[in-house]
Amino acid sequence: MTAKSPEHTPVTVIGLGAMGRALAAAFVAGGHPTTVWNRTPGKAKELVAQGALEAADLTAAIEASPLIVVCVFDEAAVRELLTPVGSSLAGRTVAMLTTFTPKSAVETSAWLAEQQAGYLGGAVMAVPDMIGTPGSQLFYSGPKDLFDTYHKPLELLGVSRHVGEDPGTSALYETALLSGMYAMFAGFQHGAALIGTGGVSATEFAGYAVPFVQAMATMLPLDAEFIDKGDYTTDVQSLEFNRSALEHIVHVSQDQGIGTDVPGLIMELMDRQIRAGHGADSATRMFESIKHPQG
Amino acid sequence: MTAKSPEHTPVTVIGLGAMGRALAAAFVAGGHPTTVWNRTPGKAKELVAQGALEAADLTAAIEASPLIVVCVFDEAAVRELLTPVGSSLAGRTVAMLTTFTPKSAVETSAWLAEQQAGYLGGAVMAVPDMIGTPGSQLFYSGPKDLFDTYHKPLELLGVSRHVGEDPGTSALYETALLSGMYAMFAGFQHGAALIGTGGVSATEFAGYAVPFVQAMATMLPLDAEFIDKGDYTTDVQSLEFNRSALEHIVHVSQDQGIGTDVPGLIMELMDRQIRAGHGADSATRMFESIKHPQG
Repeated sequence: MTAKSPEHTPVTVIGLGAMGRALAAAFVAGGHPTTVWNRTPGKAKELVAQGALEAADLTAAIEASPLIVVCVFDEAAVRELLTPVGSSLAGRTVAMLTTFTPKSAVETSAWLAEQQAGYLGGAVMAVPDMIGTPGSQLFYSGPKDLFDTYHKPLELLGVSRHVGEDPGTSALYETALLSGMYAMFAGFQHGAALIGTGGVSATEFAGYAVPFVQAMATMLPLDAEFIDKGDYTTDVQSLEFNRSALEHIVHVSQDQGIGTDVPGLIMELMDRQIRAGHGADSATRMFESIKHPQG
Repeated sequence: MTAKSPEHTPVTVIGLGAMGRALAAAFVAGGHPTTVWNRTPGKAKELVAQGALEAADLTAAIEASPLIVVCVFDEAAVRELLTPVGSSLAGRTVAMLTTFTPKSAVETSAWLAEQQAGYLGGAVMAVPDMIGTPGSQLFYSGPKDLFDTYHKPLELLGVSRHVGEDPGTSALYETALLSGMYAMFAGFQHGAALIGTGGVSATEFAGYAVPFVQAMATMLPLDAEFIDKGDYTTDVQSLEFNRSALEHIVHVSQDQGIGTDVPGLIMELMDRQIRAGHGADSATRMFESIKHPQG
């Protein structure tokens, strides 16, 4: 083993699924002494060949590095792994790259503080193949000084941003961005179903839909302005106007024999605001139907 | 009045709302003799100042041009206007830039054929301010020879594409693209509501969401491939995997006290396929829940 340089903080990666392996490989490639461990054996071979060290047990894995990256299946798996080895975490920082709720991030951060350990909440906006490329984006939240301390190794995984002191904020960013992504996919699929009734392939439709969605995405900051000021007064593109467009989409979907769930829900979110007397306001007021669930 | 050149087909615009006025202004600016008419008076002043002719009545408006662009409030308004003047339409072409269902487009096209008139279904993917700019996109369907005949004036309105012989196809393109747009907006608003619970402004969120949505939109052709081949077999990103991501978003939304309608619907669309035994297939299989409505 080569001598450790202060520029190359030792890093431990716990959990060697596809994402954990990609994270560990990026640390190895970046020259960091990298220790890996997985609950079930047999996942570390390729990483060891690249230069990683496989720890004999979880405690040894933790004791090998000041920075412990945890990337396992879910919150329950994290609790099951870390609870018995809490005392070995003292003085170390856990970067949680397992999908967490903001609430669990806060709770886990508090538990780690009791163990004299630090917590950085993390969210990986990338698939494993993208790790270490400029397309990979990671959000971190928790103490800014911990983020700064470990910024160099973390930056090896992708563009890394610190988005707040609250350990749960990175999880909010992740769920917020994924909400937008999944809804966009559902909208595209509704469009593909509609246009398919006219014998047009989804591939041909995608040729129009991709630039259209990308162009329309540039309108989102206008939505954001209304939301942030909380005043939806407008003289163009009212809720009533957009509601009639949604009604048209629902009507055409029925005519063409496909489902109406996706446009129907959006129409209903608009209708809740119209029923409350806000039909002349901006269509962005639909946001209030999302923010304030029905009683 | 200047002598008509064969390069400048006379055009009539019926309906002078914000969109109709923008269409007429583009024809005038392009040098076409442009006749305009609106059911209620007083909308033509600015256009007349620019060089348009205001017709005394609807029949005179129709008789002024071989190409009649109709841009009124809805299908009912079109029927009310055109039914009494059917015979004056003989030998002319109606470009229907009023929002129509594919079914009504087919019916109206058949009715016009009885009047010895042609029909081009049209869909304007632009707001009035964009008409005549490269960002304006229009879809036309119906007889290709009619589209070719009037391509020059129509191209003045924006990038114009002929997408099929069936008069209803342009309406399918419009509703399909708008489905994607509205769903993307709903997803962004859900994300903004989520992240707002952490004190992050919608504007700050939009700074991350716009490039993220634009990057993820480049994945749509992969969705389209699955849809077109109708085979959703995959070894990555299964429905089960994505379903757990949606469940996480729903869970976090509940924790944070906002609504769950948007992610909840997407999870339900996935669940319908999982319940039918397709959990190991690609997440794109959610498309089948949209295409085949529940009985």
